[in-house]
Amino acid sequence: MPETHVRRREALRAHLRERDLDALLVADLRNVRYLTGFTGSNAVLVVHAEDDATSVFGTDGRYLTQSARQVPDLEHLISRPTLHDLSELIGTRAAKFGRVGFESHRITVDELDMISAATGKVELTRAPGLVERLRIVKDDAEIEALRMACAAADRALADLLEHGGLRPGRTERQVARELADRMLDHGADGPSFDSIVATGANSAVPHHRPTDAELHTGDLVKLDFGALVDGYHSDMTRTFVIGKPADWQRELYDLVAASQAAGRAALRIGTEVSAVDAAARSVVEDAGRGEEFLHGLGHGVGLEIHEAPSLAKTGEGTLSAGMAVTVEPGVYLSGRGGVRIEDTLVVRDGDPELLTLTTKQLVVV
Amino acid sequence: MPETHVRRREALRAHLRERDLDALLVADLRNVRYLTGFTGSNAVLVVHAEDDATSVFGTDGRYLTQSARQVPDLEHLISRPTLHDLSELIGTRAAKFGRVGFESHRITVDELDMISAATGKVELTRAPGLVERLRIVKDDAEIEALRMACAAADRALADLLEHGGLRPGRTERQVARELADRMLDHGADGPSFDSIVATGANSAVPHHRPTDAELHTGDLVKLDFGALVDGYHSDMTRTFVIGKPADWQRELYDLVAASQAAGRAALRIGTEVSAVDAAARSVVEDAGRGEEFLHGLGHGVGLEIHEAPSLAKTGEGTLSAGMAVTVEPGVYLSGRGGVRIEDTLVVRDGDPELLTLTTKQLVVV
Repeated sequence: MPETHVRRREALRAHLRERDLDALLVADLRNVRYLTGFTGSNAVLVVHAEDDATSVFGTDGRYLTQSARQVPDLEHLISRPTLHDLSELIGTRAAKFGRVGFESHRITVDELDMISAATGKVELTRAPGLVERLRIVKDDAEIEALRMACAAADRALADLLEHGGLRPGRTERQVARELADRMLDHGADGPSFDSIVATGANSAVPHHRPTDAELHTGDLVKLDFGALVDGYHSDMTRTFVIGKPADWQRELYDLVAASQAAGRAALRIGTEVSAVDAAARSVVEDAGRGEEFLHGLGHGVGLEIHEAPSLAKTGEGTLSAGMAVTVEPGVYLSGRGGVRIEDTLVVRDGDPELLTLTTKQLVVV
Repeated sequence: MPETHVRRREALRAHLRERDLDALLVADLRNVRYLTGFTGSNAVLVVHAEDDATSVFGTDGRYLTQSARQVPDLEHLISRPTLHDLSELIGTRAAKFGRVGFESHRITVDELDMISAATGKVELTRAPGLVERLRIVKDDAEIEALRMACAAADRALADLLEHGGLRPGRTERQVARELADRMLDHGADGPSFDSIVATGANSAVPHHRPTDAELHTGDLVKLDFGALVDGYHSDMTRTFVIGKPADWQRELYDLVAASQAAGRAALRIGTEVSAVDAAARSVVEDAGRGEEFLHGLGHGVGLEIHEAPSLAKTGEGTLSAGMAVTVEPGVYLSGRGGVRIEDTLVVRDGDPELLTLTTKQLVVV
């Protein structure tokens, strides 16, 4: 959809003009993809504040054919090292590129030296996060991709449970592999990150990597996984009990579920992101378990698995309609087990839209 | 193997002393893994030039248990934002940390501002690529991991072929999925990168992503894939013909095979990396196809799928024993088809050691 990308570049231009920038040099690959639709592994873009006739897209010879197809509406530079050569091109067109912003949150110290030398008398100025600020609010096409990614994960999990995927004796690795495989069955391009499958005491490790540990009756089993569809990442966590839950497991589960519900309920347009974290965290703190909630409440999802906004104590800003975020409180009892419950949701006028539809009731498998 | 990591940090210390650095701040996650064995997704490390008693490892609460187990021999800082908080800690110990190197090839412009503010009067100085320079020569444990990764890919491909995986009517996506699945069967933790499966005219696109395009009799089919084992990446490309090869296909294949053999033969201790590229490229140029060899000859592999050295025209330096590299010439006839043949090898005294053992004869499937 070239119009989508034309529209996004137009939105970026408004920010450039506001900041008196002649152009923005975009080196972050996700940002280039967002602005052009290019899906290759090497690309740089300079978006001119005036119009697209002066913008240039750069990649290398491996993507000659693909870039011509995916980015038909911009001048191309096919060259390597691409960032250097595009910088040099900007330098030769200094009359048009007097003052150029660069992504200081992505460009390394060494790259800036190189760009400075290559662009010559062009004035370079820090312009971090401009494209990310656009990306934070998703358009309909993006939400549709997220919806498909969440559906692939929901369906994969349903299939897994239906086929006894969490029976005692299976290993964490086997479960992770089956989840990945079933997501592919349901249209995913792949997992959106390395799945977490953690059983028994391992579930108390927030980011445990799957091992050959076997699932046992009485274990808490935590699954944190997601699907990738058209570059968009879904993210969901569910925690199960194998066999009859012990009292402490049910209490822990209910506590985290209440915290998660409070977090979801706080997802309202205009709410401070730190207040969303606080809404969920206070439930855990009131139960005397604040110290065992080891991470932030959630994060934005989109072209990256972790992107703005950060729903954390230290997060800044307020929620707007169209933001896609996770809500994922967790409480971890070291050496015993942990529970995390996580959804992906879209902030809407009124209640948020839930994209991950798997039940959050305690499922005993 | 803590001794391995102790030894690597000791080797790094020699470089720090040479450069009059009191310490190196290591923020690249692969470099942290190399120096500590930590496999989580967030970590920073400061290695002191004197000894490990003054070095500090930083991560966040998600990795409390894991980091204690994997990095038992260093002081830990469990805090977030980790890079900021470790920088502050360095600032409070300025008596010990007078002059600290940072990875200017990884640290962004904005991060450097933040580190400067947090470290206060500590002198920060650019120290790019110090750990990468150690990583370029692999030790026995690393080569063993690479060997296992290459073996997983070899076996997956053998299984695929044996079970008719490249029969007409299958799609590129199906083949990619089967390859990934079979690599897991053979002990891989996953694919080492997004597999390339390209059939017919798609094979002329060097980095084609698998689509729903079907394999047809008469197609060139290019498979570029690898396995990940213990963090180490294998990389292999083979190109097949479905059915009887046309003359142009056989000629193209023979040309690339001759170029690849020339590249492998040039892998000798002391050879300039650019000369290895030239040895393979000249074979293609002599056949009048230099313009259709769209990329460099190869690259180092290890904890990253692309790392030093770069076997390219613009590559710098010479080969040493223990370097692990790919040799992967390709010739691409736009709109018709392309051939690439790639191995992973280790530079040795005498002939290089071939790690990818699948035949390079033209296999007709």
